[in-house]
Amino acid sequence: MDAFDPAFLPVSGFDLPRYAGIPTFMRLPHAGPADGVEVGLVGVPWDGGTTNRPGARHGPRALRDASTMVRMVNQATAAAPFHTVRCADLGDVPPNPASLDDSLERIRRFYADLVARGVTPLTAGGDHLTSLPVLRAVAAGGAVGMIHFDSHTDLYDDYFGGYKLTHGTPFRRAIEEGLLDPKRIVQIGIRGSTYDGEDREYAAEVGVRIVGIEELMDRGPEAVMAEARAIVGTGPVYVSFDIDGVDPAQAPGTGTPEIGGFSTHVAQRMVRALDGLDIVGADLVEVSPPFDVGGITAYAGASLMFELLCVVANAVARRKGRAAVVNERLARVLGGPA
Amino acid sequence: MDAFDPAFLPVSGFDLPRYAGIPTFMRLPHAGPADGVEVGLVGVPWDGGTTNRPGARHGPRALRDASTMVRMVNQATAAAPFHTVRCADLGDVPPNPASLDDSLERIRRFYADLVARGVTPLTAGGDHLTSLPVLRAVAAGGAVGMIHFDSHTDLYDDYFGGYKLTHGTPFRRAIEEGLLDPKRIVQIGIRGSTYDGEDREYAAEVGVRIVGIEELMDRGPEAVMAEARAIVGTGPVYVSFDIDGVDPAQAPGTGTPEIGGFSTHVAQRMVRALDGLDIVGADLVEVSPPFDVGGITAYAGASLMFELLCVVANAVARRKGRAAVVNERLARVLGGPA
Amino acid sequence: MDAFDPAFLPVSGFDLPRYAGIPTFMRLPHAGPADGVEVGLVGVPWDGGTTNRPGARHGPRALRDASTMVRMVNQATAAAPFHTVRCADLGDVPPNPASLDDSLERIRRFYADLVARGVTPLTAGGDHLTSLPVLRAVAAGGAVGMIHFDSHTDLYDDYFGGYKLTHGTPFRRAIEEGLLDPKRIVQIGIRGSTYDGEDREYAAEVGVRIVGIEELMDRGPEAVMAEARAIVGTGPVYVSFDIDGVDPAQAPGTGTPEIGGFSTHVAQRMVRALDGLDIVGADLVEVSPPFDVGGITAYAGASLMFELLCVVANAVARRKGRAAVVNERLARVLGGPA
Amino acid sequence: MDAFDPAFLPVSGFDLPRYAGIPTFMRLPHAGPADGVEVGLVGVPWDGGTTNRPGARHGPRALRDASTMVRMVNQATAAAPFHTVRCADLGDVPPNPASLDDSLERIRRFYADLVARGVTPLTAGGDHLTSLPVLRAVAAGGAVGMIHFDSHTDLYDDYFGGYKLTHGTPFRRAIEEGLLDPKRIVQIGIRGSTYDGEDREYAAEVGVRIVGIEELMDRGPEAVMAEARAIVGTGPVYVSFDIDGVDPAQAPGTGTPEIGGFSTHVAQRMVRALDGLDIVGADLVEVSPPFDVGGITAYAGASLMFELLCVVANAVARRKGRAAVVNERLARVLGGPA
Amino acid sequence: MDAFDPAFLPVSGFDLPRYAGIPTFMRLPHAGPADGVEVGLVGVPWDGGTTNRPGARHGPRALRDASTMVRMVNQATAAAPFHTVRCADLGDVPPNPASLDDSLERIRRFYADLVARGVTPLTAGGDHLTSLPVLRAVAAGGAVGMIHFDSHTDLYDDYFGGYKLTHGTPFRRAIEEGLLDPKRIVQIGIRGSTYDGEDREYAAEVGVRIVGIEELMDRGPEAVMAEARAIVGTGPVYVSFDIDGVDPAQAPGTGTPEIGGFSTHVAQRMVRALDGLDIVGADLVEVSPPFDVGGITAYAGASLMFELLCVVANAVARRKGRAAVVNERLARVLGGPA
Amino acid sequence: MDAFDPAFLPVSGFDLPRYAGIPTFMRLPHAGPADGVEVGLVGVPWDGGTTNRPGARHGPRALRDASTMVRMVNQATAAAPFHTVRCADLGDVPPNPASLDDSLERIRRFYADLVARGVTPLTAGGDHLTSLPVLRAVAAGGAVGMIHFDSHTDLYDDYFGGYKLTHGTPFRRAIEEGLLDPKRIVQIGIRGSTYDGEDREYAAEVGVRIVGIEELMDRGPEAVMAEARAIVGTGPVYVSFDIDGVDPAQAPGTGTPEIGGFSTHVAQRMVRALDGLDIVGADLVEVSPPFDVGGITAYAGASLMFELLCVVANAVARRKGRAAVVNERLARVLGGPA
Repeated sequence: MDAFDPAFLPVSGFDLPRYAGIPTFMRLPHAGPADGVEVGLVGVPWDGGTTNRPGARHGPRALRDASTMVRMVNQATAAAPFHTVRCADLGDVPPNPASLDDSLERIRRFYADLVARGVTPLTAGGDHLTSLPVLRAVAAGGAVGMIHFDSHTDLYDDYFGGYKLTHGTPFRRAIEEGLLDPKRIVQIGIRGSTYDGEDREYAAEVGVRIVGIEELMDRGPEAVMAEARAIVGTGPVYVSFDIDGVDPAQAPGTGTPEIGGFSTHVAQRMVRALDGLDIVGADLVEVSPPFDVGGITAYAGASLMFELLCVVANAVARRKGRAAVVNERLARVLGGPA
Repeated sequence: MDAFDPAFLPVSGFDLPRYAGIPTFMRLPHAGPADGVEVGLVGVPWDGGTTNRPGARHGPRALRDASTMVRMVNQATAAAPFHTVRCADLGDVPPNPASLDDSLERIRRFYADLVARGVTPLTAGGDHLTSLPVLRAVAAGGAVGMIHFDSHTDLYDDYFGGYKLTHGTPFRRAIEEGLLDPKRIVQIGIRGSTYDGEDREYAAEVGVRIVGIEELMDRGPEAVMAEARAIVGTGPVYVSFDIDGVDPAQAPGTGTPEIGGFSTHVAQRMVRALDGLDIVGADLVEVSPPFDVGGITAYAGASLMFELLCVVANAVARRKGRAAVVNERLARVLGGPA
Repeated sequence: MDAFDPAFLPVSGFDLPRYAGIPTFMRLPHAGPADGVEVGLVGVPWDGGTTNRPGARHGPRALRDASTMVRMVNQATAAAPFHTVRCADLGDVPPNPASLDDSLERIRRFYADLVARGVTPLTAGGDHLTSLPVLRAVAAGGAVGMIHFDSHTDLYDDYFGGYKLTHGTPFRRAIEEGLLDPKRIVQIGIRGSTYDGEDREYAAEVGVRIVGIEELMDRGPEAVMAEARAIVGTGPVYVSFDIDGVDPAQAPGTGTPEIGGFSTHVAQRMVRALDGLDIVGADLVEVSPPFDVGGITAYAGASLMFELLCVVANAVARRKGRAAVVNERLARVLGGPA
Repeated sequence: MDAFDPAFLPVSGFDLPRYAGIPTFMRLPHAGPADGVEVGLVGVPWDGGTTNRPGARHGPRALRDASTMVRMVNQATAAAPFHTVRCADLGDVPPNPASLDDSLERIRRFYADLVARGVTPLTAGGDHLTSLPVLRAVAAGGAVGMIHFDSHTDLYDDYFGGYKLTHGTPFRRAIEEGLLDPKRIVQIGIRGSTYDGEDREYAAEVGVRIVGIEELMDRGPEAVMAEARAIVGTGPVYVSFDIDGVDPAQAPGTGTPEIGGFSTHVAQRMVRALDGLDIVGADLVEVSPPFDVGGITAYAGASLMFELLCVVANAVARRKGRAAVVNERLARVLGGPA
Repeated sequence: MDAFDPAFLPVSGFDLPRYAGIPTFMRLPHAGPADGVEVGLVGVPWDGGTTNRPGARHGPRALRDASTMVRMVNQATAAAPFHTVRCADLGDVPPNPASLDDSLERIRRFYADLVARGVTPLTAGGDHLTSLPVLRAVAAGGAVGMIHFDSHTDLYDDYFGGYKLTHGTPFRRAIEEGLLDPKRIVQIGIRGSTYDGEDREYAAEVGVRIVGIEELMDRGPEAVMAEARAIVGTGPVYVSFDIDGVDPAQAPGTGTPEIGGFSTHVAQRMVRALDGLDIVGADLVEVSPPFDVGGITAYAGASLMFELLCVVANAVARRKGRAAVVNERLARVLGGPA
Repeated sequence: MDAFDPAFLPVSGFDLPRYAGIPTFMRLPHAGPADGVEVGLVGVPWDGGTTNRPGARHGPRALRDASTMVRMVNQATAAAPFHTVRCADLGDVPPNPASLDDSLERIRRFYADLVARGVTPLTAGGDHLTSLPVLRAVAAGGAVGMIHFDSHTDLYDDYFGGYKLTHGTPFRRAIEEGLLDPKRIVQIGIRGSTYDGEDREYAAEVGVRIVGIEELMDRGPEAVMAEARAIVGTGPVYVSFDIDGVDPAQAPGTGTPEIGGFSTHVAQRMVRALDGLDIVGADLVEVSPPFDVGGITAYAGASLMFELLCVVANAVARRKGRAAVVNERLARVLGGPA
């Protein structure tokens, strides 16, 4: 079942208008983890780790809805992810809004099953604590690197008098649990007023590389991503994209916005620069529809999920010894490989 | 395949939170018309007949999203439609936004197939012109009666210099085409400023009974519905519910609102009063999400679709010689049959 | 120039879609006060008297926009105001947002000119202080009666340490200035928490009749309006409709909402009950578009302006010795006069 | 410290515009529980029990903001609560969004301190699970009765496989814990589709009186409240008002709306009918600002809190052997006592 | 009638506040094509070609409303278009929402009349199919060049099984019909996921120059526009500006947004760089008010229409052998010509 | 009372969630001017000078609400303003919406008291006319310099026929009154269509330096601010930040937006570049919540107030002979001073 299978192609907007049909991620078939899927798009409708404005539990549905605006091919790179690997919408992890601990375990189990079946996950959050149980599954075999787009480090130790599990602490926990190799972590876009330098001090101690928004703006996405690629190297790497890394004008629908962010254009360039890395999983988190205006955050999130999918698909193909597929007509026009 | 089948039950909010999962109508399974479905919930994402504010093409998706808030049982009547008949989401009719004529034919064909398979349709529009091709399928075998909730008669002759097919003319056409028996039509909630008395004069001539909003308010829903039931009698009847019949405070998301409408509470009572009629199809049309605020119109529409489903399911059961199913615990509390 | 003139008819929605064209009030011609107009629709884009949430200065534009949804004929009464009198949009009074006093005088002058030319004004506010300079023109020849729909009495004496001119005080001033005869004033819909009983005490002293919302709900609009008609009698009467009399669910876009209001349906019935009174002017005030949601307040306001226009037109026709015109086809259906 | 103290009066809108100033509840002084306060307005910014759409954690702030529109005196009854008892804003209970259990205990402790000091609480939620820890404090000395306005019974047993503490279960727990006497509970406004009759069956078994929306609409608020008063009798009673009891058109900003609800006008009448009961605490819960439109839900909630305050203040005065204070000028006009 | 005529000046915001008055485009007089107008601002309230989210039919009204915020003079260039040529609002083309074909012909006829009278049109759409009938009139005498700002090429061949007339195909049709010279077309800002490279391949074949967003960002607006000017040369050129070329954060109110767009600042610079070209018509299309937030898209569109007007006015003046007029005081400050 | 006092620290988000508690500016204590405060955050809820879209009267409350999202330390500079000086929320100036003149005097008096007590003010407007009475107090002892971020010069002479006091004229008046030294004024970000060059000509005559948006974009914030610092030199300087300087996508909630503005990132860099100047007061004005979407403008405004506070606090510390306090852990990470 390695060859291209048209049953895994999305519905085309030339055949059915993009606003029509039951909305799955990118109009993909709804399938189960045992159906031969190579890249599974998964929703985690949960915001139990949110210390501030809630609503990320509604993220997956809004992302599915917006994602029906996404088409087949990446016009900037000619990448054709749906022709490269078998993709499907695997539905939502069933969360338990009445229990943080039960939810963490439900998520971990769901992803452990995917990992066991060789499915590479692309997650639509949920708040950023989602990444922790996902990493508990994805990195069960050993610490991975991470490229992390965000306005916050999410490296705090605790909140509210010793509570260790919130959306401000997932990567502190993941480092402590040996899921992430701090020397192979790069955090990009960090900014905003802060409580204290404690998270930054911790990052410096364990070796996490932080690229603040000022540095990103000064050096540009190409230089920063070149360094990031060098830091994570050829080993397995997880990609975590918190939509609040993007400026609040382009992504108002999130719980903890910070002004002065990077643009979606820069975000697209940075994600495209991940191509070639050995990505073992990716997430797009913290889209909070109740705080969105005009659906633009969901649409930005869905569009960035498509960019992530392009580089994830290529990584999966490489791991399987296959070549990435590009759209030949477009590639010819762009002067790239065909 | 006549017995109750748990595979056709919606996902429960006790098991999966109501905001989670790919949104089908009322969290029903997504099925095809050949899968043994008895009542098919169908979306018609089309507003090609709209002469005024558009957006009803986005209705089915918004109605699906809102409908995941609907639970299993009607608390007022103890009706349990999902236990009474096999229901499913049959997806959307593929419209053609570039051609009014092609869209009308696509819709008719889709419903003709349902009729041929014995599936009773409950439609989520779409603008009100949708009802015409649906009737062309449902009433292909002979004129049916209609109970029609609306603020407009939709009995105009033409627009813009002789154009006969718009959302202001469907029932004039349906009467002309012999799909509706005008003497078995009741229109309820009619109001608003008007161009001219031409539609009302036509109604009087062919025998359509119009209950204006003032009469509805004065006599109350019970008396009006008793008369309506008497008018349509025991023959086959179609139910068409234009959401703009409801007051704009409760249903702002529609193309042609009219102030001074009936409330959703009255709407619920009127729909419940349809129980016992031989309903052969029903639609809920003119929800226009781009004009909605806070999703309340979609939620009202989805809730009224549930009320319609309760009476449609009972009609289907009766036609199949089965008893309607009620929730016994609730029925006991309500003092009704168990 | 007394006969019916088709040049004063609105553009029909059968000819030009209702969303098209430069928006004048009800799609009427834009004319000047000297052009033979009998009823002039005038905007007063001014909120200089507002002590609370502003924005009524944007009322006229929003009301014009919404009013293009209004058609020719009153379906409940068959009244055809545009065929009864020559109506036109006379544009906006030029306000001065930098000076309350200058604005009051600009408004008074504008209306004094209308009065001099025999034009009966139907005003779109603006905040409620607008009514004061309008009355200074309309009632320059002697005190008139008033039927006043509102949630507030607007009979306070002063604010902020002795300031006498705000939207909470216009009718106290108008009574003091001899513009209104307090014994011929009826205020309907009054409610809400209050600072103190001072305004109510004043009303009782000078003889203003106040119908609180509880009384309106208990007795119903027919009984209340019968009493109101008896109180104002056959003399000249001004009608002032503050949109905040309507419930905030139907009219959220206003500066000082009060929950528990009357519905638009009741409002329509009350305005229709004004038919036969000698109305010398009317206003619809306090629509504040920045606080509106989905434009429903503007639409309610425009629809109520149409109801006001129907009774104003009939009063003008009577004063000119002409009969009111009704739509004959509709009148026949309704069983009324033809 | 029993006499009237002007330091506990709100800031007047005649002195400072209602949009100005740091927003405390009803513009009351911010005080501590030990400052001689008799009725404490408390916020509980917490939605940890929410199984569906979140956001009630933002309720207290939105209610404070909207409550600055509230004035001194109840115009319908002449009640002057701020002159009757010493009221203050006691700030917010500090919740812990990272722990449901810790939050429940923090709330209980806060209220236990109020009870110990003789302060009667009026709570602004928060989701409906808030009522449980409040009752654990208020009813620590013995079961109380309850009048409960809502569209849901909140008497379910558990969710998501055995989880007992959610906003759908507080009163089942409170009955089990002996905090509420089920035979002295009345639930008013219940409606909506339901999972199953299990909660209604439980209610019937333990003796809770449920007034569904159909019964309320048919009998009217006066008759229903007369019965409710008879059921709870002269003993201590808690009042819990879930804003989703109100129709979604008037209260869209809530997590679990149900169409066909009662109006704010009816709500006001029902709350006023509580006067004379021995109210030992009250709450207004489930306002979810992220789902609100135009702030109308917060404004409705704040206005109903004022109605609740009027009857709570009178109960406190009675318990202290003092007479309720009314506005004399208004009382004279209304023909009531002075 | 060649000299400057003050009757064609907009109303000044120093005289009448910008929110007052019946909203014509830029507060210009409403005139007919025969009234001596040189540049006619025309609305086309039509979205019959829209394959995706509708609402552009409401564009002209929203653009008129927002355009009353525009003042007299271009502060960056000192251009004074209203003093350079006689401008007026010519009203809306009457569309037929019930017929795509009839609408196309109605638009063509309206513009053919303008062309016949020597009026240069500046159009407010409407969806992008609008440009086709406009070009059928404007380029009736021979193919023109085009500078086209957009995120899409609109060069697709057909949709939904062979339908050739949609807002995704106008320029394919215009090239086929000989209205546009493909070798004198430049498309700027193209981006977004794509169905297939078919449109790009076609563009390459016929010689259309496409500047993708990445190239625009890398080279900057000055370099790109220098090349564009060279490509179109001195012959007649049409300018088409699809608002979705602008980033969705600045222009959310459009049917088919694409993230990662250019900013309004860059848009202004690009339009100003058109000065000196022989512009024979221009349009600003795809503003869809139902999807707008806070009116910012309409305001961006109206502001860009003013920039377009500045360069169109200069082209008209040149064609008439007159000099462009600049504001002398401002020109002196800017150091430019006076 | 010169030493650091923990009583003036904000509530931490680690202790109380940021959405909880009565919202004061940045969660500071509410204090009076006599309580030892060094930097007073003051609201001016007033928009009496607004010639266009109102609502800035609601600015202070929205800014307080949004400001609870601000934390303790500036992550880009390690500045710790709350540890550097004693800050507090001094409440709102009581405006008089019924009188422009009285309001101006009330504001002046309030600030004169602050100046007399040695409190440096940081103001949250209110419209831009607010700056005039503030300067009348702050610059009572002699003309100061000003760095002014805005899209408008606010140097017009009069409006509406000679009215001199509007939000378009404050700095013309302040120069005439000797409050501002025009040769030490720099205006940054100026753009938009304009009535006439009159304000620019005046600026050139009296020596005001205007940096238009094109120059800012071309030279960058560093070069522009270096020049600005040189122009204002070491003397006392006032900082006025009109939120409409920021692009409308990031700050839609303002009365007079102009497209093509600078980003919040550039704004942050420009404000940080003010460090070292002898700032004697600062304001952030023209946030108009009724026109905001999703609260992003208020949040941008509050975030920029924090940036202003950092440089104001340092100036105050310098004037008192104390060193600025930085967060040592963060400073170490950033490589700055510790």
